[in-house]
Amino acid sequence: MTIRRIACQKEHVMTHKINFMNDYNTVAHPEIVEAIKSAIDEKHEGYGLDERSETARKMIREMTECPQADVQFLPTGTLANLTSIASFLRPHEAVIAQAAAHINIHETGAIEAVGHKILTIETHSGKLCPADIPPIIAQQVDEHMVKPKMLYISQTTEKGTVYTTEELSELRKLCDEEGLVLYIDGARLSYALVSDAAVPDLKTIAKLCDAFYIGGAKCGILFGEALVVTNPKLQDDLRYLIKQRGGLVGKGFLMGIQFEALLRDRLDLKMAGHANELARKLTSGLAGKGVSFDIETESNQVFPIVTHKKDKELEEKVIYEKWRDLDEKDCVIRFCTSWATTDQEVDELLKMF
Amino acid sequence: MTIRRIACQKEHVMTHKINFMNDYNTVAHPEIVEAIKSAIDEKHEGYGLDERSETARKMIREMTECPQADVQFLPTGTLANLTSIASFLRPHEAVIAQAAAHINIHETGAIEAVGHKILTIETHSGKLCPADIPPIIAQQVDEHMVKPKMLYISQTTEKGTVYTTEELSELRKLCDEEGLVLYIDGARLSYALVSDAAVPDLKTIAKLCDAFYIGGAKCGILFGEALVVTNPKLQDDLRYLIKQRGGLVGKGFLMGIQFEALLRDRLDLKMAGHANELARKLTSGLAGKGVSFDIETESNQVFPIVTHKKDKELEEKVIYEKWRDLDEKDCVIRFCTSWATTDQEVDELLKMF
Amino acid sequence: MTIRRIACQKEHVMTHKINFMNDYNTVAHPEIVEAIKSAIDEKHEGYGLDERSETARKMIREMTECPQADVQFLPTGTLANLTSIASFLRPHEAVIAQAAAHINIHETGAIEAVGHKILTIETHSGKLCPADIPPIIAQQVDEHMVKPKMLYISQTTEKGTVYTTEELSELRKLCDEEGLVLYIDGARLSYALVSDAAVPDLKTIAKLCDAFYIGGAKCGILFGEALVVTNPKLQDDLRYLIKQRGGLVGKGFLMGIQFEALLRDRLDLKMAGHANELARKLTSGLAGKGVSFDIETESNQVFPIVTHKKDKELEEKVIYEKWRDLDEKDCVIRFCTSWATTDQEVDELLKMF
Amino acid sequence: MTIRRIACQKEHVMTHKINFMNDYNTVAHPEIVEAIKSAIDEKHEGYGLDERSETARKMIREMTECPQADVQFLPTGTLANLTSIASFLRPHEAVIAQAAAHINIHETGAIEAVGHKILTIETHSGKLCPADIPPIIAQQVDEHMVKPKMLYISQTTEKGTVYTTEELSELRKLCDEEGLVLYIDGARLSYALVSDAAVPDLKTIAKLCDAFYIGGAKCGILFGEALVVTNPKLQDDLRYLIKQRGGLVGKGFLMGIQFEALLRDRLDLKMAGHANELARKLTSGLAGKGVSFDIETESNQVFPIVTHKKDKELEEKVIYEKWRDLDEKDCVIRFCTSWATTDQEVDELLKMF
Repeated sequence: MTIRRIACQKEHVMTHKINFMNDYNTVAHPEIVEAIKSAIDEKHEGYGLDERSETARKMIREMTECPQADVQFLPTGTLANLTSIASFLRPHEAVIAQAAAHINIHETGAIEAVGHKILTIETHSGKLCPADIPPIIAQQVDEHMVKPKMLYISQTTEKGTVYTTEELSELRKLCDEEGLVLYIDGARLSYALVSDAAVPDLKTIAKLCDAFYIGGAKCGILFGEALVVTNPKLQDDLRYLIKQRGGLVGKGFLMGIQFEALLRDRLDLKMAGHANELARKLTSGLAGKGVSFDIETESNQVFPIVTHKKDKELEEKVIYEKWRDLDEKDCVIRFCTSWATTDQEVDELLKMF
Repeated sequence: MTIRRIACQKEHVMTHKINFMNDYNTVAHPEIVEAIKSAIDEKHEGYGLDERSETARKMIREMTECPQADVQFLPTGTLANLTSIASFLRPHEAVIAQAAAHINIHETGAIEAVGHKILTIETHSGKLCPADIPPIIAQQVDEHMVKPKMLYISQTTEKGTVYTTEELSELRKLCDEEGLVLYIDGARLSYALVSDAAVPDLKTIAKLCDAFYIGGAKCGILFGEALVVTNPKLQDDLRYLIKQRGGLVGKGFLMGIQFEALLRDRLDLKMAGHANELARKLTSGLAGKGVSFDIETESNQVFPIVTHKKDKELEEKVIYEKWRDLDEKDCVIRFCTSWATTDQEVDELLKMF
Repeated sequence: MTIRRIACQKEHVMTHKINFMNDYNTVAHPEIVEAIKSAIDEKHEGYGLDERSETARKMIREMTECPQADVQFLPTGTLANLTSIASFLRPHEAVIAQAAAHINIHETGAIEAVGHKILTIETHSGKLCPADIPPIIAQQVDEHMVKPKMLYISQTTEKGTVYTTEELSELRKLCDEEGLVLYIDGARLSYALVSDAAVPDLKTIAKLCDAFYIGGAKCGILFGEALVVTNPKLQDDLRYLIKQRGGLVGKGFLMGIQFEALLRDRLDLKMAGHANELARKLTSGLAGKGVSFDIETESNQVFPIVTHKKDKELEEKVIYEKWRDLDEKDCVIRFCTSWATTDQEVDELLKMF
Repeated sequence: MTIRRIACQKEHVMTHKINFMNDYNTVAHPEIVEAIKSAIDEKHEGYGLDERSETARKMIREMTECPQADVQFLPTGTLANLTSIASFLRPHEAVIAQAAAHINIHETGAIEAVGHKILTIETHSGKLCPADIPPIIAQQVDEHMVKPKMLYISQTTEKGTVYTTEELSELRKLCDEEGLVLYIDGARLSYALVSDAAVPDLKTIAKLCDAFYIGGAKCGILFGEALVVTNPKLQDDLRYLIKQRGGLVGKGFLMGIQFEALLRDRLDLKMAGHANELARKLTSGLAGKGVSFDIETESNQVFPIVTHKKDKELEEKVIYEKWRDLDEKDCVIRFCTSWATTDQEVDELLKMF
């Protein structure tokens, strides 16, 4: 079964309701806005060829201990995904992904629009394990089928779960054996980095995969995702591809400024840590009231199972996402926390159960 | 002959040099940054389905007197162009454009990458006139050739020139006769709106074309271009196309906030007016010193002809773009003004001649 | 589970083995070759704009009682499929197909390569029924997902099964309700037309779907598939799309000549009838020897379940396709008959069981 | 100026008129048809993996003295071109071609439809010389422009002219210097091979370029073009690309059979030699009557300049192609000879002048 996203389309306005809709519903953390404001008298080269972007790039290369990394800033995650895939793969090469993968479900066929097939695997956890992959590769026997060439995973996954260092290492091993590029969609990477699980840090991520991106918009900045291509064989002419697909931002320095502010003193981890902590609090509070969950909470997304009646009731007072119907009685909903979520909001929400 | 852009790649850093490089070398006008800052406590629906975007959309519909317009905000001009073309045209349909058109020269084949051929026409002015078009259409005689379906023009053009209301009306008439969609790339539309020439206002633009975009990044905001599709027949499922091509920004409300601030009290025209005025001052100053120009100055771009020796000399003290070599003696350079350019900077530059 | 095709790559040469590999392993029916030979002194207009193609087109329009049909001849089925989809759908629109659909499994991502996502449904029969479709449509809730726009089915299906008139009528009804184009891949349409089931005839097919193709190469001619677009709304500029995708054959008249010979006196039905009869004989012969089948035989493809040991044994004497492994003991193999298969060959094959 | 092709659309029928329309207006040379007929009892592996294709491939490898060549048969020249380009180039890489190149003018944007820009150069001869290329490369200065990666030329060119060995060697040298793939569209290669000029033979062609195709349909067979990829670096997974783009023909062995018959005893050269000889005869006959030509006759295409009045007159009795209008008085027409053109037809045509 495929995850369904049901936009609360009536909720286009600011309301007095408490908001657990997503982690990109505010402008940005004040320090980010302040960083931009303080650069107001600077003049910069365009398209990310400026000093501020270079500083941010350098920080990322140092944090990842990957001096050879090609770091580029793009305005959206979809652009990071589609540009990487268009750049790394030849036309007949395909991507393997979990069925609920953002590229498979929530990007309006962006990957197919740049010409590539996605081969999918269903799992409950939203994660893939090494044993899932060989069967799908074995099915592609000759030139009448596409040729699997990339493994796409998300950290955190679309279900808020995280890959541990061990799990990621095993996937890396499999990719080496099968000749696959390992790409990590890190739209919510910050939340994974501070998860309670034994997760890989940035350095380990950079070491284990061929390319990944560090999400910005879902992790507290205005806009911008940092694509990090660690494998030198995949770096050729990357900026050409970014420009061709519309991702080369004239004022690229704005993303440099933001990432500098986000990563210096690890504001990213502070924000994500706050969000995860409130998600944990919300989870244990709900559990204490007998609520069960579709999936265990491992980061800033919480997936309670509620009755349709309860869902209707909550809708009156809370903004959140309905995830999917389970049956005639129950459905799964999603509460998402962020740097801007407050303790009081969680308390208020818990009182409704 | 095709216009050449030679990036001053050594100038990636902020320097004490005066900067006439382009109109997107600063963060943004302070009022824009302030508008963003003042929204820091708001929470919004994602992807442009928010109240602030709706307000900006409404302002644009009113200013253009086009209540049926579909207004969408995209992060880059290239995305506005490629998404529109991918949305409006069938695979065998082609775009007619002036040879120096941004989509033809400076978007790394973005239009071809979404599958469409560009048929080009050379002119010195950067503009097209109705008589230019029929011959190229006449050459496409049957199904072995592409079928021209869109006329793409830029206002201002890539050479800083502007279409007058009369010229645009004539192109509209031709498009009606030939069954062409008329699309205007308005990356620098503000500068055209306050040009000295008898130019079309926003209302007239909206009336005469099928779709256009109001440039943001080159006209004083942080990021964001407002795509305005006035022809209802071209509006179907536009947001699907935007998402598919990576242009649907999670925090779309940021573009709504900025366009609201840009258009309320017409800050856009004030900024562009300032830039054009300084460009005029620079032009007449240079002319007074005997400098000649590749093309007449009609907006915020000035194209003096200088010797290669002079070019070398200027490079030491000014940041600008070398445009193209004319011959062994001379070359064309470009000075670009913006809201942030000062009178003193123009004086200083003039002193170097 | 996805159907696996395992090419018997060692069998590239003609051998004394009996051949049940497929229905396109011979040059063509002698009458077809004769028709070509007898035209050797004719001179024709290129690209299908000739008298012979026009005659074949007219015959098809009459047989389908569809005077408005646009009939075009293409060199391969993959080209018929990808050209139709590229022509009928906008970029964000998707195709719904059974998981084993030729376009999904056996065309190397041809549909994705022209930009479209395929949404798949697993069934054992290889067929889809109306109840299968709404759930997958319901999952595509907004502009973050693709928009289903075409239902692709095959007659006969990739498993040799056939849609009855009633089943096809129900799918048509569903397509009307859901706004879907109904497209039928008729690579093996002839075999369906003479199936024992209550199948739709050509007229009914033309009436119920928006477009389909009449397979040539798998039904006894040298090369060529007749694409029939019955829905006038989908006919615009079809030949442009065919040319663009490489399917406009210089000597198009060769396909006209062959289809004329194929359809006059319904040689197609005679050949397919012969093939189906031998497939029935083979099936009942095998059943009599206790062999069971993966799927019931409804046309010219027979899918017996045999042990891996038996498979090894057969390989020495017969050329056929291994379909998929069932478990450690058994596998499914495929025997395919054609106009060229003889009664003796079937007898010989049966003796091996 | 761009070459215009004006299809004689009224001439869809066989007539008593003499036919100088093109070189693909007959079924095929009788020996080719006979070769197909004589294989009628054979059974073959599909998709070109058969013994007959292998024999033809081997012949081509031997004739070209290129044992490492990857030889694949495709049904149309457009498929050979678009598949090669899609296979050899990354998305941002562009093709350089003469403006009248088949891929630029007569393939309905096929190359753009697979995502690549064509950079064009105008010449009167239809040929390119090394000096033409560097300026267009010099214009592509950075990642905002496409990256030239392939030089596409045609032998014979679209104007019937031919590259000499020396000219081709110089282009090869330039391609080495500039890092370009050299691709030759050989739709009419046979006619070039027997031209009077000091042209490269097959061996030299194979040695000098990275890939080319040997035209079939325009050189006397039914259908099929032999793509020869001589550069091993460009051979990876070529058959995947061919399948994906619809060019993998089920009965691929038919092309093997035809190329075997075409190349054994060099029937190709005999046919082309006959056509060229009649073209020469026609040319000198016309010249003797005071007719001048748009371009010198070097192969089987003759381009006389006639008055519009003469054109009208000829149309009544001859089928040929109108090429382009020169001015109010004159136009260029094209007479094309083939293996099937007779001495009498040339005499008859000459009598009309």
